[in-house]
Amino acid sequence: MFKKIDHIGVAVKDLDEAVRLYRDVFGLKLLEIEEVESQKVKVAKFDIGGVHIELLQPTADDSPIKKFIDKKGEGLHHIAYEVDDIEEQLSQLKQKGVKLINERPTEGSSNTLIAFLHPKSSIILTELVFKGEK
Amino acid sequence: MFKKIDHIGVAVKDLDEAVRLYRDVFGLKLLEIEEVESQKVKVAKFDIGGVHIELLQPTADDSPIKKFIDKKGEGLHHIAYEVDDIEEQLSQLKQKGVKLINERPTEGSSNTLIAFLHPKSSIILTELVFKGEK
Repeated sequence: MFKKIDHIGVAVKDLDEAVRLYRDVFGLKLLEIEEVESQKVKVAKFDIGGVHIELLQPTADDSPIKKFIDKKGEGLHHIAYEVDDIEEQLSQLKQKGVKLINERPTEGSSNTLIAFLHPKSSIILTELVFKGEK
Repeated sequence: MFKKIDHIGVAVKDLDEAVRLYRDVFGLKLLEIEEVESQKVKVAKFDIGGVHIELLQPTADDSPIKKFIDKKGEGLHHIAYEVDDIEEQLSQLKQKGVKLINERPTEGSSNTLIAFLHPKSSIILTELVFKGEK
């Protein structure tokens, strides 16, 4: 069902400091830094072996990432899998009892379609990403 | 410095239930289930596109995974990178100010050498894995 890990999301307080760590100390390749207004985060994307690591810094007090950091501290936030047919996948997962945050795919960054599964039934916050033709 | 993501560790309360989710609902390939006495965990290893997901259930009240779940709940616990020369990497990271949990590599599962970096200076609990000739 799931093709590969697309990215791993990491909640951080200080993006500049986190970028220095991942780029200069760990030596990961920084792809881009962008602000995603709809999610109220600033994101630094790294690549390692075709999997991305996304460092996420909240840009507002009501950002979901801010709430996560307040509750659990900085750290691993979600895992995203690339899928072929996101609508079919969501339908199958729902049939199998998985609780969905997004019943329908929404627009993600870089022209993707995304949907989140609820951590209550998927243990960790899990995202599906579709990169094909919409 | 870091070659690829080797695995992502996920802390779970009920391994049987988590295995059913990842194998039967998400469709990931289950490689093996093993008990690692030194870490006081039972581990289910999955593969997706060459990256492993390790579901970790504590087997004792003083297991580090039990402490993590008590403090933060179930969820993403650590990320592990494959490296070529683990001793050299640890030395370089220490020089750059990264705090190490293991100053020297220790024996991991499947004939590997492993070492953990401290989350205090690496944001998330980070593991290095060396798979070559020792």
